[in-house]
Amino acid sequence: MRVLGVDPGTQHMGYGVLEVAGPSVRCVAWGTLDAPRGQPVHQRLRFLYLALGQVVDAWRPDHLAIEEPFVAPERGAKSAVAVGQAQAVGLLLAAGAGMEVHRYLPSQVKSAVADYGASTKAQVQRTLQLVLGLPPEPIAEDASDAIAVALCHLAHWRVTAKVRTA
Amino acid sequence: MRVLGVDPGTQHMGYGVLEVAGPSVRCVAWGTLDAPRGQPVHQRLRFLYLALGQVVDAWRPDHLAIEEPFVAPERGAKSAVAVGQAQAVGLLLAAGAGMEVHRYLPSQVKSAVADYGASTKAQVQRTLQLVLGLPPEPIAEDASDAIAVALCHLAHWRVTAKVRTA
Repeated sequence: MRVLGVDPGTQHMGYGVLEVAGPSVRCVAWGTLDAPRGQPVHQRLRFLYLALGQVVDAWRPDHLAIEEPFVAPERGAKSAVAVGQAQAVGLLLAAGAGMEVHRYLPSQVKSAVADYGASTKAQVQRTLQLVLGLPPEPIAEDASDAIAVALCHLAHWRVTAKVRTA
Repeated sequence: MRVLGVDPGTQHMGYGVLEVAGPSVRCVAWGTLDAPRGQPVHQRLRFLYLALGQVVDAWRPDHLAIEEPFVAPERGAKSAVAVGQAQAVGLLLAAGAGMEVHRYLPSQVKSAVADYGASTKAQVQRTLQLVLGLPPEPIAEDASDAIAVALCHLAHWRVTAKVRTA
């Protein structure tokens, strides 16, 4: 079973692919897709759609886990509209590939990673490296956020799988 | 020159295609795309992406005019995220087809239609029918909103065309 985690943005989009086999899990692909600077939003979205589409084609994930970011009211509707635009890139690709889609709040992602004892950004990185067998080099924040949401989904999925088989 | 107007929604999406030849303009296609009820958002977005894609393929518009809806802060971020998701459907198709993209605020659309003397919903419909040679039957509101944003773009485009040639 493979989970694609996505941290949605209209300029930078983080992704991470987890491969799950029974109790074992490893991160097989991760990175940040950077849309060309200074392009209008429709061209950046298309760039991200094609680039994330290549990740989907290469890894054929079964599930998409995507963050539903909390948008503070004072940041205004503009920021929330941009989040929706970026999410749509992942949602359209998931629907096209027949993937299940699961959305998580930042608080759920934080709590899932905290179960491994991580709370600071540096601890999250270290935790991901230990749990998922990632190399010791620092990972870009967008990518580690995407891996964290995939890991959050995995925790939820394992609980519901236990409920299913109980 | 053809303008595709879109009124973005994740359940219902209005569209209208204006064909412009010199001073004359007529509406050659319009309608509302209705995503299947009760489907999760990623499947509704994909339905709308494929359906609006057929409109783009059939009419090959040069410009996309899309409403940038005002999202009242009290309606919260959820509604703004949905607007962004629906916009992304049109934006991705426009980028894929090499169309120019122009976004308009509701106040700009209202003012453009008011230049034809219309302010109530019924007057807007009547105005669109008179100006664009539409049949006298009432048009679904999502479709007439989409035609109105296309007409708004046309007004702006004609002004800038005059500036260009002056």
